[in-house]
Amino acid sequence: MKFSVTVTLKENVLDPQGKVVQNTLQSLGMDNLKSIRQGKYFEIELNDNDPQKAEKKVDDMCKKLLANLIIEDYKVNKI
Amino acid sequence: MKFSVTVTLKENVLDPQGKVVQNTLQSLGMDNLKSIRQGKYFEIELNDNDPQKAEKKVDDMCKKLLANLIIEDYKVNKI
Repeated sequence: MKFSVTVTLKENVLDPQGKVVQNTLQSLGMDNLKSIRQGKYFEIELNDNDPQKAEKKVDDMCKKLLANLIIEDYKVNKI
Repeated sequence: MKFSVTVTLKENVLDPQGKVVQNTLQSLGMDNLKSIRQGKYFEIELNDNDPQKAEKKVDDMCKKLLANLIIEDYKVNKI
């Protein structure tokens, strides 16, 4: 069973890495760029057969390690 | 117009960062974990109104800066 997880900074948290990417793209001539924010992406494969249990486990992983819930949000999708 | 971009390492490229996350999760007791791979995630907002032109631009950004096509794949989605 495979899941994708995206971890993004919360709306009101500064994203210096994204800002650098944005400035670089603009200096490369991408003038229509409004904003860009960077996050993390994980592809997780589990041996579980029960979709609900598996999703619960992925959720646990996010809370324990993958995301810092103070400044980050996460989204889990089955793929 | 908003797009999400995920950049992942190609199948046969080693992912040491993902491996460390995997080992850490296993040592936290996640025994059903088969594999985990880490990638990058971008949320890009453009001022363009033409969806096709905008998608083309995001594609250009990926090729020029966001992804290293030798070792990475990327996927663009409209959100």
